[in-house]
Amino acid sequence: MRGTHEERVRIRWRDVDAYGHVNNAVYLTYLEEARDAWVRAVLGAAFDFVIVRIVIDFRSELTLEDREVVVRCVGRGYGRSSVLTHERVLAADGRLAAEAESVIVAHDPIGRRARALTADERTRLDAVLEG
Amino acid sequence: MRGTHEERVRIRWRDVDAYGHVNNAVYLTYLEEARDAWVRAVLGAAFDFVIVRIVIDFRSELTLEDREVVVRCVGRGYGRSSVLTHERVLAADGRLAAEAESVIVAHDPIGRRARALTADERTRLDAVLEG
Amino acid sequence: MRGTHEERVRIRWRDVDAYGHVNNAVYLTYLEEARDAWVRAVLGAAFDFVIVRIVIDFRSELTLEDREVVVRCVGRGYGRSSVLTHERVLAADGRLAAEAESVIVAHDPIGRRARALTADERTRLDAVLEG
Amino acid sequence: MRGTHEERVRIRWRDVDAYGHVNNAVYLTYLEEARDAWVRAVLGAAFDFVIVRIVIDFRSELTLEDREVVVRCVGRGYGRSSVLTHERVLAADGRLAAEAESVIVAHDPIGRRARALTADERTRLDAVLEG
Repeated sequence: MRGTHEERVRIRWRDVDAYGHVNNAVYLTYLEEARDAWVRAVLGAAFDFVIVRIVIDFRSELTLEDREVVVRCVGRGYGRSSVLTHERVLAADGRLAAEAESVIVAHDPIGRRARALTADERTRLDAVLEG
Repeated sequence: MRGTHEERVRIRWRDVDAYGHVNNAVYLTYLEEARDAWVRAVLGAAFDFVIVRIVIDFRSELTLEDREVVVRCVGRGYGRSSVLTHERVLAADGRLAAEAESVIVAHDPIGRRARALTADERTRLDAVLEG
Repeated sequence: MRGTHEERVRIRWRDVDAYGHVNNAVYLTYLEEARDAWVRAVLGAAFDFVIVRIVIDFRSELTLEDREVVVRCVGRGYGRSSVLTHERVLAADGRLAAEAESVIVAHDPIGRRARALTADERTRLDAVLEG
Repeated sequence: MRGTHEERVRIRWRDVDAYGHVNNAVYLTYLEEARDAWVRAVLGAAFDFVIVRIVIDFRSELTLEDREVVVRCVGRGYGRSSVLTHERVLAADGRLAAEAESVIVAHDPIGRRARALTADERTRLDAVLEG
């Protein structure tokens, strides 16, 4: 699918907590791997941003036996300074482990604050957003 | 406030990422510390649960200079098997670093699946939920 | 090489600290991935152990640009209840990022204490140890 | 003791792995909290360094029931560009959980390489090293 980024992430022993499954906080690390790659691919490696919101639904637990996950990230929309992405974490057997929506905001590293998306950035986003 | 649990968490060097601020995934670890304590206090140490949903809004960045955060957890409601909590992460200077809502589900560790809340558990929740 | 286990580990954004390089504690997670695989291959998946000692020399820093490392684990010797392994963390360009020696001890999960290696385990180790 | 730095670290749920005890890599995070504080106290907040070697002996396991540890760091010696520290991780009941030696090297952040300790730094170290 145009504009989808897919990242394969190996599950590590350290990702698992005392319940024997991947800890909830680690899912955000998995999401981050795919979202960062999507942002680099769409907006360039120099695009600086911060995360302002994540909504995550945990659908099924992951254990070491799953060995790895595939994380798919797509763009869903954008505002004046924000970009909305959608992520899915899939186990190797195809089942959905988690689903998430994230909002990132373009960031001015000098002023350390949000900035508006440029015309060029909006054009790049228009080219990949899902209809 | 009745039914609020407050947990003080020291920020570690390891919590900070290459942007020089606490990484987004680490906030879920901070939430977890307060929520687990709230659950133990309200529903007992033997109450087994899984997280099924987290909505988190990142309000301001945290750095090592903040040294520690206070995480406040309150109960907001419950369903047949689920409990809704609300968490706030506050920097030492009082500013809001993040706000979250979490849904946990009572878990049967033997059957490894969700179970209904018992009458006793609902009574304990009624005693502490915010109106 | 007989008895060497090699594990490819992708570097994650979360592995990197505020210095912009992989944090020292994360190297132990990389070692763990290769050592656990070596132990499973040589002594079986049911072999329970604890780590009692790690000596690690950090030879060169790793950054996100390295993308991944290869961790090689070999056995070096064993005692009554302990096994000595040696690990090397190699960057994709072949340079040595770290070198380590680890001592693990066979563990009785029921008694929660060290136990002697069995004759069968010593035979398996003899078959793979580097001369 | 003159020149000892003591850091209290709360054990987090996330620190614990599937064995139900604090993961070996997390001990390095605990050491880091005390060592960084010792370095800041002795050599100043602007002292830039990298870790080149850690030797850690795991003496007893830590679980959530331990709630927190105290990490003590002392200086043991120094070379042309390196400083040797010694760390002890103590459980709340006083038992030794781990013991470590670390070697850090003064770092020139501009040249990104090791540099010699200055005369002033050696004087500060002389004032606190254990005899």
